[in-house]
Amino acid sequence: MYPIKTLHTEVLLRNRWYAIRRDDILLPDGSLGEYNVVDRRDAVFIIPVLPDGRIVLIRHYRHTVRDWVWAVPAGSIEDGIDPTAMARTELREEIGGRTESLTLVGDFFTMPGISNERSYVFLARDVRLGTHARDPTEIIESHILEKKDVYDMVRRGAIKDAPCALALCLVEHLLEDG
Amino acid sequence: MYPIKTLHTEVLLRNRWYAIRRDDILLPDGSLGEYNVVDRRDAVFIIPVLPDGRIVLIRHYRHTVRDWVWAVPAGSIEDGIDPTAMARTELREEIGGRTESLTLVGDFFTMPGISNERSYVFLARDVRLGTHARDPTEIIESHILEKKDVYDMVRRGAIKDAPCALALCLVEHLLEDG
Repeated sequence: MYPIKTLHTEVLLRNRWYAIRRDDILLPDGSLGEYNVVDRRDAVFIIPVLPDGRIVLIRHYRHTVRDWVWAVPAGSIEDGIDPTAMARTELREEIGGRTESLTLVGDFFTMPGISNERSYVFLARDVRLGTHARDPTEIIESHILEKKDVYDMVRRGAIKDAPCALALCLVEHLLEDG
Repeated sequence: MYPIKTLHTEVLLRNRWYAIRRDDILLPDGSLGEYNVVDRRDAVFIIPVLPDGRIVLIRHYRHTVRDWVWAVPAGSIEDGIDPTAMARTELREEIGGRTESLTLVGDFFTMPGISNERSYVFLARDVRLGTHARDPTEIIESHILEKKDVYDMVRRGAIKDAPCALALCLVEHLLEDG
């Protein structure tokens, strides 16, 4: 069924966050090749909207790129947890948010050129903010912004974290004007 | 200046596409930690628009997720090549496209939770289609779609390749109505 057939597979490296899996593959033209897959748990991205329609973004320091980037609450889905429960947990841990209204909006492959990670996008409405519970590796500030300003940022490319920017694009048509 | 300080760094694995770099880090609270970075060349994503305003999408078989996904021409930037030249090359190789009108629209970090890859988004207007030059690992079909249909797909979440979907979002306001 699949145009690429896996002949042999082997884990080259495993860390706390993912494994690098080497697949020896057979291509449709009959030639042999190699593909390395970043084998990783799925993730959730949550767009938190306050009762007054404003949106909570975070500024996240990312060691990978040595920069602060605008983002939304997100995280990998832990074993045995369903995406909705994980979205609730990340919302609470990263910005102290709670809500009764959490809707799955869609999903995408975060970086399918190299990884099998699938990301689920949630819209959290009527979010009330309390105390967050960030761990020391999460260097995050919360910012409350008007919806208009958030989407101006999206359109002018100021949200540099790609899956976060896409998550914002996917919920836009669900948000009331204001 | 950076909230996270790197104390020691070491390459754990290197393949044709990226290296996995282990950084031993010092966190702002004084605790020690480890970060693994997928150290990877930057990338280009190109939105090809024909003279009549229609858009060329590709269907790309992705071994990582064992599925066909809608995408746009894209690729890693080879050493010594600038992003614009690489965008021209990918446009030609993946869909046989040529243009005199290639505009850098923006950039983003593809997956900054794990990788330092930066992606540059190009809008290619007045694209003429000729013969492509795909290599055997690129299992790709070209499809020509109306702009309206493409953005309906984006909004209903049918473009599952996240950086491609975001690239389409970022150029939308630059495309004329029609």
